[in-house]
Amino acid sequence: MDDYTKTPRTRLRRASQRGQYDRDTVHAILDAGALCHVGYVIDGQPYVTPTLYWREGERVYWHGSAASRMVRHQAGGEPICLTVSHLDALVLARSAFHHSVNYRSVMILGHARLVEDDAEKAARLKTFVDGLFPGRWDELRPMTAQELKATSLLVMDLNEVSAKVRSGGPIDDEEDYDWPTWAGVVPLHTQMGDPEPCPRLADSIDVPTNLMNFLDFDRYKKI
Amino acid sequence: MDDYTKTPRTRLRRASQRGQYDRDTVHAILDAGALCHVGYVIDGQPYVTPTLYWREGERVYWHGSAASRMVRHQAGGEPICLTVSHLDALVLARSAFHHSVNYRSVMILGHARLVEDDAEKAARLKTFVDGLFPGRWDELRPMTAQELKATSLLVMDLNEVSAKVRSGGPIDDEEDYDWPTWAGVVPLHTQMGDPEPCPRLADSIDVPTNLMNFLDFDRYKKI
Repeated sequence: MDDYTKTPRTRLRRASQRGQYDRDTVHAILDAGALCHVGYVIDGQPYVTPTLYWREGERVYWHGSAASRMVRHQAGGEPICLTVSHLDALVLARSAFHHSVNYRSVMILGHARLVEDDAEKAARLKTFVDGLFPGRWDELRPMTAQELKATSLLVMDLNEVSAKVRSGGPIDDEEDYDWPTWAGVVPLHTQMGDPEPCPRLADSIDVPTNLMNFLDFDRYKKI
Repeated sequence: MDDYTKTPRTRLRRASQRGQYDRDTVHAILDAGALCHVGYVIDGQPYVTPTLYWREGERVYWHGSAASRMVRHQAGGEPICLTVSHLDALVLARSAFHHSVNYRSVMILGHARLVEDDAEKAARLKTFVDGLFPGRWDELRPMTAQELKATSLLVMDLNEVSAKVRSGGPIDDEEDYDWPTWAGVVPLHTQMGDPEPCPRLADSIDVPTNLMNFLDFDRYKKI
């Protein structure tokens, strides 16, 4: 089972060559991101909320305040959609019509549920923090029972999933390639600036190695 | 009328100090982006689709293929949500609980409609292209009637709108400020790489001035 099963809801109708369903592609797109957009419906109105997420195996997780209306609705068993997208490049063609962008996106349909077990919650939150900043969890002031209680952890299985990817240069109409306009690709990258220490940080504390590891992540390049 | 009217659906319940409703803030957040996420509902299932957008006055526009199922549903008068978000920084605190991110986001609730008039459609698409690449529209092979017909243009009014913003450093529990862990802000930037010419581009065509203008946009910094 290397592919997610296409369903009538995830099968691409148009530009179907851009649709991808294999697990490696989906996992790579998810693992390259930190911010997702979750769609959910309240009284017939869809809402799209940006939030951080992470993947472990065939599950994606995100968290929020236990007091959040959004969290309560997302955990209520109603259908939701979690989308991750990376805008990789602007694609400039000789005609406006063939301008495009390169991107990688994943859409996950299904239902979320709350992770209720405290030990499980703490373990998943550790993976979240250490996934961004390797080793950081153990260097932090330990999480209290009250903080754990105040944090809701949501999980969604990777069952009904599709990826969509565009890469490469402009594809113009054949008769347009001689049109005297610059055409090509302008890549976009997310990059990190210099870390800015908290004003109340002791001068003796340097930017730690785990943060420097993060700065070297493939997905973020240090300026 | 410098503020959008808060409604029960756009009033922030939690962290309400992060909610902003003034038009200048909303416009600035929208104008700093190119990619939005549109939420819409088909048969009770929400979908969240990333797409490019632009703002003109009190309207946002996006476009798609006239043959697209997504476009047909979004234009059908059903409730939709258009969200724009910028992830500005990672915020590292002394406890996992107080880790955060800095961000700017806008959520627009309402209904979309199609722009049907051809002249109006062409004018809006020109604004879209020239908004990204000043002056480029007039340098392109002109849009044909068939291309215009194949392009659906969607518009949504800025009526029910909220912005949400976090900025600044970590806010730790008072007793944690002495905890011996680095804390602070790691800024994230979207930056442009070197333009990659189309392999079929004549050597005599340099990267044009309008693209260089784009490279200087505040929101994108040249590497």
